[in-house]
Amino acid sequence: MNTVTDTYQTHYSRSALNMRASDIRELLKYTEGRDVISFGGGMPDPAAFPSGKIAPIIEHVMSSHAADALQYGCTEGHTKLRRAIAQGMGDLYGVPQDTSNIVVTSGSQQALYFLAKLFLDPGDIVLTESPTFLGAILTFRSFLAEVQGISIDEYGMDMTDLEDRLRDLARQRKRPKFIYTVPTIGNPSGAVMSVERRKRLIELAAEYDTYIVEDDPYGLLLFDGTRMPLVKSFDDCGSVFYLGTFSKIIAPGFRVGWLAAPEHVAAKVAVAKQAEDLCTGTFAQHCVFEVMRHNVLLPHIADIVSLYRRKAGVMQEALKTSMPEGSSWTNIAGGLFAWVTLPESLDTRAMLPRAMERGVAYVAGDAFFPNGGGRNTMRLNFSFPSEQNIIDGVSTLGALMTDAVVR
Amino acid sequence: MNTVTDTYQTHYSRSALNMRASDIRELLKYTEGRDVISFGGGMPDPAAFPSGKIAPIIEHVMSSHAADALQYGCTEGHTKLRRAIAQGMGDLYGVPQDTSNIVVTSGSQQALYFLAKLFLDPGDIVLTESPTFLGAILTFRSFLAEVQGISIDEYGMDMTDLEDRLRDLARQRKRPKFIYTVPTIGNPSGAVMSVERRKRLIELAAEYDTYIVEDDPYGLLLFDGTRMPLVKSFDDCGSVFYLGTFSKIIAPGFRVGWLAAPEHVAAKVAVAKQAEDLCTGTFAQHCVFEVMRHNVLLPHIADIVSLYRRKAGVMQEALKTSMPEGSSWTNIAGGLFAWVTLPESLDTRAMLPRAMERGVAYVAGDAFFPNGGGRNTMRLNFSFPSEQNIIDGVSTLGALMTDAVVR
Repeated sequence: MNTVTDTYQTHYSRSALNMRASDIRELLKYTEGRDVISFGGGMPDPAAFPSGKIAPIIEHVMSSHAADALQYGCTEGHTKLRRAIAQGMGDLYGVPQDTSNIVVTSGSQQALYFLAKLFLDPGDIVLTESPTFLGAILTFRSFLAEVQGISIDEYGMDMTDLEDRLRDLARQRKRPKFIYTVPTIGNPSGAVMSVERRKRLIELAAEYDTYIVEDDPYGLLLFDGTRMPLVKSFDDCGSVFYLGTFSKIIAPGFRVGWLAAPEHVAAKVAVAKQAEDLCTGTFAQHCVFEVMRHNVLLPHIADIVSLYRRKAGVMQEALKTSMPEGSSWTNIAGGLFAWVTLPESLDTRAMLPRAMERGVAYVAGDAFFPNGGGRNTMRLNFSFPSEQNIIDGVSTLGALMTDAVVR
Repeated sequence: MNTVTDTYQTHYSRSALNMRASDIRELLKYTEGRDVISFGGGMPDPAAFPSGKIAPIIEHVMSSHAADALQYGCTEGHTKLRRAIAQGMGDLYGVPQDTSNIVVTSGSQQALYFLAKLFLDPGDIVLTESPTFLGAILTFRSFLAEVQGISIDEYGMDMTDLEDRLRDLARQRKRPKFIYTVPTIGNPSGAVMSVERRKRLIELAAEYDTYIVEDDPYGLLLFDGTRMPLVKSFDDCGSVFYLGTFSKIIAPGFRVGWLAAPEHVAAKVAVAKQAEDLCTGTFAQHCVFEVMRHNVLLPHIADIVSLYRRKAGVMQEALKTSMPEGSSWTNIAGGLFAWVTLPESLDTRAMLPRAMERGVAYVAGDAFFPNGGGRNTMRLNFSFPSEQNIIDGVSTLGALMTDAVVR
């Protein structure tokens, strides 16, 4: 955008002047409709949409519930869907919720946004894994919060580093507003937080009087079919705010996610939502509820897992074949992404235009580090591209990177 | 909510502590599922939903476009829908837009919210009609803006009052960030701004270097079948931001509205939206686009107008029969509401609990006045209740109010 000609600039609010577009969304926009193999977004494989199962369910919504499904709804969400989610969290994870704990949002991104709005003033501190979900970093920063990264390994957030940081902050009479974590299949790292660390995280949050935002888009997409206990399952004092989404297990096109939080926080989020968009799409909520009710979800998730496990295998094989010596990538335990570390001399952000010229897009890894670093890393999505495109795209990238190392 | 037990209060942001729930949404929540005749909300008649026409269109979306319709979409909105909206504004109102001017939002409420976010800092001034849409007042106040009401008559905002206010503010070296108007069928007043005033509004905005937010949910619902020229149609210098919605002409359950604004502002809104909910529901956007494409919209709007015109007639007859002497109501030229002024001695807010006890809900009129007043006014929705409920509910209200005057 040409800011010189933007005469509106002089009238904008301070927060508008501070707004920054996300690398990934810009990339998505750039690649839309172009002949590019994109490892950039986090889009599910369309083959993972249960279209055949959904079509008759939508017909049922239209023939039996049109008057409600096409009408305005409660800001908190469609009551039956909230009840089903509350019960589902009990059935799947052993953390049954009350309907009053659930607010349906336009994707879990919106729930994350509202939590940030509820708790963050300019200068407030949020602790996150480093690297972490770019959308979260941007959301926190849009409230002028300071995002501090905590180091991770394959078992998730390093609790010693976290404790040190909390202690340091306490000495400065500072307290982070919350600790944001993607404990099961971290984005982009793929790390899975161990049970011990989950318990320890709860203890530390209590000790330092802060909260935990548990973002869980991939919890049901572990390739070995197991289910990790939620951080929330160890929470006795209402300090975990849980974010769930149907985007990866049904379809993102419905934009239906949810917050599970203590009643006071849930009610406050509903007030915030009211002033912004009144309610999440009622029709989409009815569709999602009927999908849940018809018991097609769990077998469908098993299908998705097997599809993504296969694609992850293709991705790992391709990386092994093509990436330059000295590269490494994390074990892909589930989810949608491979996380690749290239030889130190390579700068993935600087390489991106050249990759795009050759018809391949990825996300430069430094974007995921709240406090810098990771210039030789990149995130590669394997859920959206076809298996052949994974092979071809990684081969192109590998040749490009190998060439760059040699020079 | 019991604030005493809300231990989260001490951690909330300043904006969270400032959040206020809307009277109307709270009323809606209270009346949901109860046996109350509600004149409170702004819900369309379910009979006005084109369910029969939509059902096969949705089947078509699922059978032909599922892979796209169930996927994430661009933050700006589904490109085909944006193009159709841009073209539709030309066809219907003679103000053709470029696709780049259009951002699809989750209802026009969300577009309004983003404009507020883009332009309002604490203490900034917004001018509105008085009375005006409650949702707008709440949204502006959520940014700690000062909302100043401009008087109206049946031809809309009083331009002399507006000019005086702008001059006064200029003398204090203040400039409102924008002037918010619902020019065609004001909510709650039902006023329709004259063409002369629309032109004058543009002149004044230019003279005092401010913008206009034109909110137009009811523009196609004038009962005489005419169409007023948009304020935007007189705008040569990009100072009008137009809000449209499909909620009243297709169905609110899709939550699809839009902003039509100069490209720089539209692009900035997209950046703001990105950080909040990524994109509006793709599936709903595909459904709305297909409804537009199948040319069912204009004949359907004619059906809605004839349905609401009949109900407005029933409402007006009932008011004539039942309301105490000294009451008046504005001519209902279109839309969804009657606006009633009761004898001065009556306080509609104080009366509301008694009306609810007798099974009738309405919105106390004072909520719509940004700077106080209107304690003897109320807004009555006639689109949602059945004709019999309109007759019965107004009869109950009339008896209650008559009784209260006498005492």
